[in-house]
Amino acid sequence: MILTVTLNAALDITYRVPALTPHASHRVTEVIERPGGKGLNVARVLAALGHDVTATGFAGGDTGRTLHDRLRHEPRITDALLPVDGATRRTLAIVDAATGDTTQLNEPGPTVSPAEWATFRETYDELLRGGASAVALCGSLPPGVPVGAYAGLVRTARAAGVPVLLDTSGEPLRRGVAARPDIVKPNADELAELTGAHEPAQATRDARRRGAQAVVASLGAKGLRAVTPDGTWLAVPPTRVRGNPTGAGDSAVAGLLSGLVEELPWPERLARAVALSAATVASPVAGEFVASTYEDLLARVAVTREAAAA
Amino acid sequence: MILTVTLNAALDITYRVPALTPHASHRVTEVIERPGGKGLNVARVLAALGHDVTATGFAGGDTGRTLHDRLRHEPRITDALLPVDGATRRTLAIVDAATGDTTQLNEPGPTVSPAEWATFRETYDELLRGGASAVALCGSLPPGVPVGAYAGLVRTARAAGVPVLLDTSGEPLRRGVAARPDIVKPNADELAELTGAHEPAQATRDARRRGAQAVVASLGAKGLRAVTPDGTWLAVPPTRVRGNPTGAGDSAVAGLLSGLVEELPWPERLARAVALSAATVASPVAGEFVASTYEDLLARVAVTREAAAA
Repeated sequence: MILTVTLNAALDITYRVPALTPHASHRVTEVIERPGGKGLNVARVLAALGHDVTATGFAGGDTGRTLHDRLRHEPRITDALLPVDGATRRTLAIVDAATGDTTQLNEPGPTVSPAEWATFRETYDELLRGGASAVALCGSLPPGVPVGAYAGLVRTARAAGVPVLLDTSGEPLRRGVAARPDIVKPNADELAELTGAHEPAQATRDARRRGAQAVVASLGAKGLRAVTPDGTWLAVPPTRVRGNPTGAGDSAVAGLLSGLVEELPWPERLARAVALSAATVASPVAGEFVASTYEDLLARVAVTREAAAA
Repeated sequence: MILTVTLNAALDITYRVPALTPHASHRVTEVIERPGGKGLNVARVLAALGHDVTATGFAGGDTGRTLHDRLRHEPRITDALLPVDGATRRTLAIVDAATGDTTQLNEPGPTVSPAEWATFRETYDELLRGGASAVALCGSLPPGVPVGAYAGLVRTARAAGVPVLLDTSGEPLRRGVAARPDIVKPNADELAELTGAHEPAQATRDARRRGAQAVVASLGAKGLRAVTPDGTWLAVPPTRVRGNPTGAGDSAVAGLLSGLVEELPWPERLARAVALSAATVASPVAGEFVASTYEDLLARVAVTREAAAA
């Protein structure tokens, strides 16, 4: 079982409108709802790849109830979201049908109490020791959760002997990296914020020196750069896939974790992550991937080894 | 007991954002949720005035569950919303903190099945005969409900001897008026659409000839014009109140109904409706009224009788 942690889970709502005009009234022509937050997106992709997943984090209020209802219908995902007194946040994506452009509105999320956070840490430890083959810690922290939360969760995973991947940003990333996670997967902005370096190769190496065993930096449509104990690789998709990049990073995380638990060598993990990521961009539905595109791209991702830098 | 009908009830959500920019990502700084749809707004104002209210219509899905939860905490409102298979719609008002301007997004609402509609009509008849002193039919029709629905509901109320007020627009209003409701309360646009006349005095008289016993036309900040069996009146607020006009029309409906069940003469009903409407504009919270403003304005609304036109 792979464990995913989504402390600030969300109900992702997509509205389609003919055209978004500020200060006007709009009739929404299509409403799509689904469980969201990076960890739940990763869980869904892992399940689609055939892995058993346990999803933990918090869910509360009426939106949280919707999340539980939806997860009940997801094959291979065990719902281990814990109750929180406040309501799970909504994220709203307003898609302009004329241009395809998206306007995003994100609610802040419920405030997690010290007691709720303590209960979570206990459950997390039990889940890790109950047979987790890997754990992904994903996304932003909700109000009330201490900024060093991920650092603590990384240490607990290491103590339990479970490989841990961290995908977050800002100060929670900075502190989490120092706790020596097995993998961090920052994008270019997160990497620059973490290291102060804007040159990707340099920034990736700097991030690794801060504590992460492996740093897999997302270069957007240009693929992934990985600096690992086994070497440094650049993995590039064979063609530029056009579409909706929402969730592409979460699919890359799922690809990396999936490859990790299957004990694939790094080049194969990276090829899987890049192919999944591109197949997600190709899907019109945010966060889903086109299986045939994934299969097609998988063998064609170019993974090249780079010489170790000074 | 006053009965309010809200066939397309809503969960009204208000988001405050620093500034709404299309195609950008926004952090929502404040989220407010409350039961909505015109009939539920009218119910809340009637309850605030001290009337016992029964609120019927439809509620379904997780948003419907939220509606039931909220109504449980409203004093003097009995929740008689019937189940519908689909989910109650959300309406989203995005308030730009910088300018105060509002961008509105309305979901379409659940499709009501023929069986659900038949159950509603039975319950409605029972509620009318179970001691309703008046009934308000308010707002748009959800998908699946026939366009002549309000006409049928007006006839049922008349057969039960219960005075009926209709507040809707378009074809449902046109058909409803022909069924001879006691009061219709169109705004200027609805009136022009109904009659083809753009001059308010003419349009109000034309609307009455189509079947309504009394037509109370909303003139926005200029007050109300009423053409009734007892005479024609113009009711004007003493000062122009600035603020948020959302829900002002629903407060006017509550004022008219409240005056009707208390058997007040028309000038007093109109003064009450205009004062409530202006006190609603004065409230920063959409759909609520400032009690002290209402009390203050009530005695100062100018109600003038007009000579009957040819």
